[in-house]
Amino acid sequence: MIQVSSNFDGGNIICDSSERPDDIRLRIRPDTKADFFQWFYFRLSGARDEDCTIRLTNAKDSSYTRGWEGYRAVASYDRENWFRIDSRYQNGELILRHRPEFDSVHYAYFAPYSMERHADLIAHAGQSPRVTHSVIGQTVDGQDMDLLTVGEAPGNKQNFWLIARQHPGETMAEWWMEGFLDRLLDPDDAISNALLGRAAFHVVPNMNPDGSRSGHLRTNAAGANLNREWQEPDMDRSPEVYLVREKMRETGVDFCLDVHGDEGLPHNFIAGAQGIPSWNAQKDMLLTDFKRTWQQVNPDFQTHHGYPIAKKGEGNMTLCVNHVGEYFGCLAMTLEMPFKDTADRPDPKNGWSPARSGKLGASVLDVIYKLFDRLQSDAPDNSPG
Amino acid sequence: MIQVSSNFDGGNIICDSSERPDDIRLRIRPDTKADFFQWFYFRLSGARDEDCTIRLTNAKDSSYTRGWEGYRAVASYDRENWFRIDSRYQNGELILRHRPEFDSVHYAYFAPYSMERHADLIAHAGQSPRVTHSVIGQTVDGQDMDLLTVGEAPGNKQNFWLIARQHPGETMAEWWMEGFLDRLLDPDDAISNALLGRAAFHVVPNMNPDGSRSGHLRTNAAGANLNREWQEPDMDRSPEVYLVREKMRETGVDFCLDVHGDEGLPHNFIAGAQGIPSWNAQKDMLLTDFKRTWQQVNPDFQTHHGYPIAKKGEGNMTLCVNHVGEYFGCLAMTLEMPFKDTADRPDPKNGWSPARSGKLGASVLDVIYKLFDRLQSDAPDNSPG
Amino acid sequence: MIQVSSNFDGGNIICDSSERPDDIRLRIRPDTKADFFQWFYFRLSGARDEDCTIRLTNAKDSSYTRGWEGYRAVASYDRENWFRIDSRYQNGELILRHRPEFDSVHYAYFAPYSMERHADLIAHAGQSPRVTHSVIGQTVDGQDMDLLTVGEAPGNKQNFWLIARQHPGETMAEWWMEGFLDRLLDPDDAISNALLGRAAFHVVPNMNPDGSRSGHLRTNAAGANLNREWQEPDMDRSPEVYLVREKMRETGVDFCLDVHGDEGLPHNFIAGAQGIPSWNAQKDMLLTDFKRTWQQVNPDFQTHHGYPIAKKGEGNMTLCVNHVGEYFGCLAMTLEMPFKDTADRPDPKNGWSPARSGKLGASVLDVIYKLFDRLQSDAPDNSPG
Amino acid sequence: MIQVSSNFDGGNIICDSSERPDDIRLRIRPDTKADFFQWFYFRLSGARDEDCTIRLTNAKDSSYTRGWEGYRAVASYDRENWFRIDSRYQNGELILRHRPEFDSVHYAYFAPYSMERHADLIAHAGQSPRVTHSVIGQTVDGQDMDLLTVGEAPGNKQNFWLIARQHPGETMAEWWMEGFLDRLLDPDDAISNALLGRAAFHVVPNMNPDGSRSGHLRTNAAGANLNREWQEPDMDRSPEVYLVREKMRETGVDFCLDVHGDEGLPHNFIAGAQGIPSWNAQKDMLLTDFKRTWQQVNPDFQTHHGYPIAKKGEGNMTLCVNHVGEYFGCLAMTLEMPFKDTADRPDPKNGWSPARSGKLGASVLDVIYKLFDRLQSDAPDNSPG
Repeated sequence: MIQVSSNFDGGNIICDSSERPDDIRLRIRPDTKADFFQWFYFRLSGARDEDCTIRLTNAKDSSYTRGWEGYRAVASYDRENWFRIDSRYQNGELILRHRPEFDSVHYAYFAPYSMERHADLIAHAGQSPRVTHSVIGQTVDGQDMDLLTVGEAPGNKQNFWLIARQHPGETMAEWWMEGFLDRLLDPDDAISNALLGRAAFHVVPNMNPDGSRSGHLRTNAAGANLNREWQEPDMDRSPEVYLVREKMRETGVDFCLDVHGDEGLPHNFIAGAQGIPSWNAQKDMLLTDFKRTWQQVNPDFQTHHGYPIAKKGEGNMTLCVNHVGEYFGCLAMTLEMPFKDTADRPDPKNGWSPARSGKLGASVLDVIYKLFDRLQSDAPDNSPG
Repeated sequence: MIQVSSNFDGGNIICDSSERPDDIRLRIRPDTKADFFQWFYFRLSGARDEDCTIRLTNAKDSSYTRGWEGYRAVASYDRENWFRIDSRYQNGELILRHRPEFDSVHYAYFAPYSMERHADLIAHAGQSPRVTHSVIGQTVDGQDMDLLTVGEAPGNKQNFWLIARQHPGETMAEWWMEGFLDRLLDPDDAISNALLGRAAFHVVPNMNPDGSRSGHLRTNAAGANLNREWQEPDMDRSPEVYLVREKMRETGVDFCLDVHGDEGLPHNFIAGAQGIPSWNAQKDMLLTDFKRTWQQVNPDFQTHHGYPIAKKGEGNMTLCVNHVGEYFGCLAMTLEMPFKDTADRPDPKNGWSPARSGKLGASVLDVIYKLFDRLQSDAPDNSPG
Repeated sequence: MIQVSSNFDGGNIICDSSERPDDIRLRIRPDTKADFFQWFYFRLSGARDEDCTIRLTNAKDSSYTRGWEGYRAVASYDRENWFRIDSRYQNGELILRHRPEFDSVHYAYFAPYSMERHADLIAHAGQSPRVTHSVIGQTVDGQDMDLLTVGEAPGNKQNFWLIARQHPGETMAEWWMEGFLDRLLDPDDAISNALLGRAAFHVVPNMNPDGSRSGHLRTNAAGANLNREWQEPDMDRSPEVYLVREKMRETGVDFCLDVHGDEGLPHNFIAGAQGIPSWNAQKDMLLTDFKRTWQQVNPDFQTHHGYPIAKKGEGNMTLCVNHVGEYFGCLAMTLEMPFKDTADRPDPKNGWSPARSGKLGASVLDVIYKLFDRLQSDAPDNSPG
Repeated sequence: MIQVSSNFDGGNIICDSSERPDDIRLRIRPDTKADFFQWFYFRLSGARDEDCTIRLTNAKDSSYTRGWEGYRAVASYDRENWFRIDSRYQNGELILRHRPEFDSVHYAYFAPYSMERHADLIAHAGQSPRVTHSVIGQTVDGQDMDLLTVGEAPGNKQNFWLIARQHPGETMAEWWMEGFLDRLLDPDDAISNALLGRAAFHVVPNMNPDGSRSGHLRTNAAGANLNREWQEPDMDRSPEVYLVREKMRETGVDFCLDVHGDEGLPHNFIAGAQGIPSWNAQKDMLLTDFKRTWQQVNPDFQTHHGYPIAKKGEGNMTLCVNHVGEYFGCLAMTLEMPFKDTADRPDPKNGWSPARSGKLGASVLDVIYKLFDRLQSDAPDNSPG
């Protein structure tokens, strides 16, 4: 008998029918208290060696339907290796076709990153002599907000902030963090060694533990899209942002990178804060150089494709990067990685993957190192208080 | 600032005060819809290099207060290695004294076994060519009940059942299962190879996923102590037992081992089904031989200490082993492992541990192999149907 | 261009022709200063995706031609996993047929065990708190003779000796030792723990480093078959035996196992010391029980097939087990493992293998534990001196 | 009893006295058929918990005595982790002081890289779909010369050559290769992926297997310093160079890096081919840019310290880089890594190490990627023949 289940960390699916392998009908469950949905993650059991046709019947109502075009879902037998499977968006349904080789198989929108793995990440990082781990408060559901501070930050050092997974369904953002932290904490890495003598890195590997655990696409347990909460976060609706923003104000921010995934574009790209009132030529050049340098050190990154650019003064100030860029007078950027694959450098088997996300994370340190002296807040009030 | 959190898979604690490291006051949360409690599992952050005194103030009201005598809690920095710490039961409180070497440290009643690890266990086992994995139904909270069938069982083969963790706080039972399955699925192990040609093993590594996830000691999400539900399980209150019992009736049962942990006794021991109506001299001899043989192949097991023995006909028939032993006419036993240490072979650093639990699990195969021919149901109606 | 090379640790082959993949002609090089040969180990390069036919043309003159009957050679691409390939003994040649999947492939008589791996084994064992490592002297070529002493041995304890690889081409003997030592040094193994409180284990994982390095089948660098040197070893011709025998006389010997491989029989079996003058009924029963018990704990061992048994008083006293059995009045036995496969429990892919050898080594501890009290020298002069 | 041994792969020492731990007197054995010496590698046994003083009494006659100034030897218990120990050059002796924590400990001039590990490296690389492994001939002692070709090279592609360990005692050169190959063969590395579509890498991880196995500092088995043989190598005295040079002529060379270690300078640096007749401003700029870029991508590399620069036309044309640079009209460079530590970025525990060597090797790919278009031979006759 075929069974479909998603009652586990990060799981999301509703099963309407699984009586026949060639007619498995599922729906993605919207985020709690919100109507976003696109993330799915479930286990299928009892269909070994059967040609399965799995329909996500409400795909047409998902948050970003163009995300399904050219998209292929990931599957795994061992929960470690995730490979792409035949997928098609047709008549408003996402149709997955797969013949499982074992009794059970997991399917997901992208390789999941569980809260248990998050706890392992924090525990392992916390054993590095370079790291201070602090719990800066709790989420709506009462989970801990974990902050890792790498390198000490005396008054005259620069303070770099990197945060990930405001949108919990964008799991590649935490895979990115794993690669980034592995390198930053490697005692034999010359770049990391050079940087840590001169700056402090403040790292929030998971901005949205509640949404992560609940299998949400975009929101926290209160239904808030955290990346629209930076102007006026509050402890009821968006404590995750409130707590981090307060910490930022304590340390000051000389550089901020907010790591995301994008449903639509098959590319890695950066979205800047060009729409903020204080945008200027100097910042524009720094942004350009940051992007160009990253492309040079890691060809998985590119600068050609991306979002439309807001005009100066017309940016949405509730976004993390706009708020932080304006408030702290620093370079603040959103990194977007694809759910699909990278069109320029495709990998037919795995598509964009945890491994490649991690390597992209590691490589940002080369960029930061190269532009180090220019990554400084120009705001007079950005003195740690 | 010191923070105490337990909002994660298997976590259980209520924090009354953590203002000062030498006066951290906590309480164990009772099982949902039941008043059992003894299992605890939490993370303490922000107390690096501080002499901490942690009081579990409601220890005196826990399910089995004698369990605290001579008991030492376990701690871990990396969530993999768990070591014992100074613990004392005094004035009705369990008092833990520890000086953490890192910013965060986890404490627990015994090394936790998360549902994510359970899912990994099932996924890895399921890739063995020897295994059939089936989902036999769902728990009260809607999690999957996973059954692993190892080796094929034609009509004339023996059917062995091994189940664990009816009581979710007894995590050593699933560590035991990990060691047991590792050996049973090892293609180079001569004993496993010999057994699998002759019997089918039906394995339920976790009988109580809901209680496991919720940090319960004894009960499922409906407040049922599953090991008191075997006579009349129902799909509302104890589907976990109902589903397994039905499967047992399909296959027949020639041998049943139900794996547990015991709060009180610092010993590994077996409790038999001597109280069932059909108990007889032959079964008594088989039970004695099973225990004696196990002691011989693994000195961590012993036969001297154990529970009082019920008189024939006076056993509690709601227990798994009594029900199964009577219904199927087979040897059915409860294995108990200590939360404390083994008094005869103590390990000052780790006490009874996941590693030793796993080795005990692996060694049961030697016992089964030796007594193989005698492990047969004597019930005429035990034919798979 | 196809190339054949054996100029490395343990290598042995002479290449007569490798011009065409279907006509590769090789010869096995005899042991230095002796005419034994059967061990081969070489790398073939440049034949990816070619159907290769490799003839060992002097197979008919090897030490034990019946060893080629039913034998299949092993191959490896990564030097870790060794699998069996199509092999045939025909017209006095051993003919290997194989189509390599990569540019280079290693072939051997059995999975090799290099001196570098030996050095790693000693180094890792030496870090166990249970082990004393001592260099008891040097081989003919000047390599160290390594002795591991596990557990302390006060005057009243038993002294168990286990030695391996007197015949260097019998590499399974050192794989056996690896499994044996892994378990003996495992702090969580209850049997090992129980034994180490009561006996000292003296372990020589490699009796013949020179022959091992030189790719010999049977002899050391002086051309001596070490297992014919126990009556009168000398420091010129057989220092390896001389040194170990002296150490045995220092400690006394209550039990001795000499680990070997056998070219002919597709079985694991023990050869006893029935031919020694002091053989008696008590020893015979002990030998029988040892063998029977081992078969019970590990079905890869068997008691049906084996060597013919020498009559009392007619044994060759130059053999290790006969000399030790007689001199020390203890149970002394030769273990033989197959180069082929085990006929009763065949593994079509790997045959008898390093993994199974290691498990057999681990399981001897169960046998020793069970018969512990009877493993005592009966010689009055067996007091450590 | 204290024992000193070096009769193993790469070992080199002569023991004059080891009677007392505080007076262990050793000498380094010169290279066979040559009088170079500085490399040492030996195992000390039997001195657990003793304060040892080990004198290398002929240090004053070694090849480069200034190499002992500020130098600290490495030690290892497990043969994997090598740490620095107290060392002093005094009265012409190198004096090591150490208190071993275990029965056996290895000491060496730098972390050894055995021929067994080399064989593993070749075997693992050979399983990558990107690699062609070929045996291009044999050394003086008859070992294989292994060449790895990574990426296919049609006529119009660039051909990059990287070779290491012409001087066998400079083991860091092969650790460098391990890091380099790991990255080059990583299917998830964007830089490697980008490069392999455009160039072929020809890699000789070990130019001198005979010297490596024999524990030489500089020469091969015929006593030849291979890096003085490039003008007129011959198959008797320097087949290793002859064979590689022939292959270079087959493929053409657009870039050549020859990886070495330097006894004296505590720095990573490059020595160029400025002394060749065809040196010009364009090459000088390319060399400068290569060095500067490497420093930028890996601060363990530096450009300040290095060898004196030969005048144009006065270079020693027997060196690899001079010969190759002139003959092929390409950028050819020698990389030197320290035996000591890097003075600018010291690591008190490990000094310059295998891990850091490997990371330096990985990082050269960033440099090659950045300067890719300029890495082209300007010689008209550099067309693959």
